[in-house]
Amino acid sequence: MFREIFENVRSKSPVIHCITNYVTVNDCANILLACGASPIMADDSREVKEITSLSQGLVLNLGTLNLNTVLSMSIAGQAARELHHPVLLDPVGAGASQLRTQTALSLIQRLAPTVIRGNVSEIKNLITGKGTTRGVDAALADTLNDKNLDSAISLFQKFAAETKSIIAVSGPIDLIVDGQYTALIYNGHPMMPGITGSGCMLSCLITAFLAANPPDQYVSAVTAACCMMGLAGERAGEKLNRTGGGTATFRQYLLDEISLMNSDVFMEGINYESR
Amino acid sequence: MFREIFENVRSKSPVIHCITNYVTVNDCANILLACGASPIMADDSREVKEITSLSQGLVLNLGTLNLNTVLSMSIAGQAARELHHPVLLDPVGAGASQLRTQTALSLIQRLAPTVIRGNVSEIKNLITGKGTTRGVDAALADTLNDKNLDSAISLFQKFAAETKSIIAVSGPIDLIVDGQYTALIYNGHPMMPGITGSGCMLSCLITAFLAANPPDQYVSAVTAACCMMGLAGERAGEKLNRTGGGTATFRQYLLDEISLMNSDVFMEGINYESR
Amino acid sequence: MFREIFENVRSKSPVIHCITNYVTVNDCANILLACGASPIMADDSREVKEITSLSQGLVLNLGTLNLNTVLSMSIAGQAARELHHPVLLDPVGAGASQLRTQTALSLIQRLAPTVIRGNVSEIKNLITGKGTTRGVDAALADTLNDKNLDSAISLFQKFAAETKSIIAVSGPIDLIVDGQYTALIYNGHPMMPGITGSGCMLSCLITAFLAANPPDQYVSAVTAACCMMGLAGERAGEKLNRTGGGTATFRQYLLDEISLMNSDVFMEGINYESR
Repeated sequence: MFREIFENVRSKSPVIHCITNYVTVNDCANILLACGASPIMADDSREVKEITSLSQGLVLNLGTLNLNTVLSMSIAGQAARELHHPVLLDPVGAGASQLRTQTALSLIQRLAPTVIRGNVSEIKNLITGKGTTRGVDAALADTLNDKNLDSAISLFQKFAAETKSIIAVSGPIDLIVDGQYTALIYNGHPMMPGITGSGCMLSCLITAFLAANPPDQYVSAVTAACCMMGLAGERAGEKLNRTGGGTATFRQYLLDEISLMNSDVFMEGINYESR
Repeated sequence: MFREIFENVRSKSPVIHCITNYVTVNDCANILLACGASPIMADDSREVKEITSLSQGLVLNLGTLNLNTVLSMSIAGQAARELHHPVLLDPVGAGASQLRTQTALSLIQRLAPTVIRGNVSEIKNLITGKGTTRGVDAALADTLNDKNLDSAISLFQKFAAETKSIIAVSGPIDLIVDGQYTALIYNGHPMMPGITGSGCMLSCLITAFLAANPPDQYVSAVTAACCMMGLAGERAGEKLNRTGGGTATFRQYLLDEISLMNSDVFMEGINYESR
Repeated sequence: MFREIFENVRSKSPVIHCITNYVTVNDCANILLACGASPIMADDSREVKEITSLSQGLVLNLGTLNLNTVLSMSIAGQAARELHHPVLLDPVGAGASQLRTQTALSLIQRLAPTVIRGNVSEIKNLITGKGTTRGVDAALADTLNDKNLDSAISLFQKFAAETKSIIAVSGPIDLIVDGQYTALIYNGHPMMPGITGSGCMLSCLITAFLAANPPDQYVSAVTAACCMMGLAGERAGEKLNRTGGGTATFRQYLLDEISLMNSDVFMEGINYESR
């Protein structure tokens, strides 16, 4: 099943509409091309309905939100829901400002996104309305470990049930919950938070996986996308060990590995657990 | 002649004003520096007239257009025409939304750009008011081949005559038409559409070539710039074959080759045909 | 002292709020991560006060200023001053338009930034209200050399005394002046102006150094950051000589070297003079 989910992205080459921040937008476009999808970035409120209509999936990323893009997200999100397109919300920096938290909660309420993906601090801020934050990076105090993992899963499962969204929590271990099913993803590399955009890129990759697969496979598609991203990180890290280099070279290898990965490498490398 | 056209870019180092999208703007700035030009990105309507006045060429790219940038494009375009600066219009995603198509047609009518550069789907959408589209990427149905090439050239020539613009159509084979003259450019590499920004970067490179050369050489300057971009792609592809790597490494090599190219390499590698 | 200043950035990992241009913003985020800091880019006027409050330093970069971002810079700057956070102003393209020059002068007057960093043309335009400009790049006529160095230092010292800011003037030799003390920094590499963003990245790096160190060390912190940037350029240039490659590879190595540098390499490589 995971093999087919992976191959569908390359064979169906979905067009993904991104309303996203200007910090990592180039990486987002490049990862979508690298995985076999086709990106279109458009955020003017006068055109987003049309752009969403010709696309197969929608990414709403709050990284550098403003009045115009929040309006456009609402219009595009509504259009996508009517067309039964998958919608992913990436609440970048939720908790860092009222504007971010409130915008995220409002979009969740109005759109019931297919997936909400963020780091642990962002997701906890959405759930509890408070929490630690280090801006757009996860706070150390929020890191998942053996002691707090079960209670974290319960918290996220409840949020998933309430929002009717799949919740994808990124970190050293990724968690995917949908109200019932839980997946823990062990793929990944410690250098990934050392470059900007690894979360934004993952959000785009997940949306490509959703758009290329049927709704009854959505939880698996999210899991597969997280595995692919983490596995690309692992392979990039291994290559970096051989060649030397720093974070910029790691970033290049990461995108390279997305473009080079085939379903055999994918199937052999994925490392996750269902609960 | 082509050697001189190439060398003029490096020796005259024109300042190029870009009103462009936030997806590929970093690549656009870097390719302008790599070819010997100097980029300035400025899109506030209160300053674009001054910025255009101190520049030697203007790029108008619709990739992430909005109310503010469309106004600024109009002001800057008018100023550039009065100063007899070359103006290039890149109608990114024309056909994907009414806003894009209408903005492009309106700018064409009001500014008569020196060059209109896009992929085959974008240009056909501008001509026919309809057509297939895959967002910002060319639709497969529009690909030029032996069977449709002659009729495509006729169509583009008619458009060039009507708009008094040079039309540059990018794809596996690039076409340059000016109402009479036709050039077919065979330089290029299949990985180029696999990275974001190869079209946007080409638009910037063309504008640098226009700005560094006299108006009676404009068609040749456009042809030379397309050859340079394609040749850099070929050389990047060859290097990638030797070193291994994916699309991110290809992109790095592509920009590297622009910065490293000299007129001997250029003259030896260019591959085009006039009709 | 310099060793401690360097190590403080890595150990304190300050959050840096950047209101910056969309051309080089990705490089800015990546260099902040590479040096050990944590970037947050946010420019909506409704949230910048909160974002600044959770940060430890503020970068105001005029590269693609507009009505919204100028307002946000003013609000964030005021908040940062009240919190006694360091504020750096990067007057990109001062002299290229009235808007840029006036915005920079207005922010200087209202905020008294901790540091004003630009190339020699930008800073001279701020001081004299006129001067040569090549857009965002320094004009050749303004290059510092043995003949004009002393008079340039006097000019910048006077400006520093008037503004109560530390003035950092980037170029083949960097100058740091604070009204009394002068540092000349000899670290650097000729390819640095051949990539976009080397100035913007330096501004971010300086702000991370300020945020991680006490106010009575600010001049040394600015000097140390300029040394680190120049030294990373030198090391990137040396690696490029060994591996080959063009400007894109140089840029990658530059960011790599920032991420890889430790205090031993730093202390051994820094090359500056106090006057």
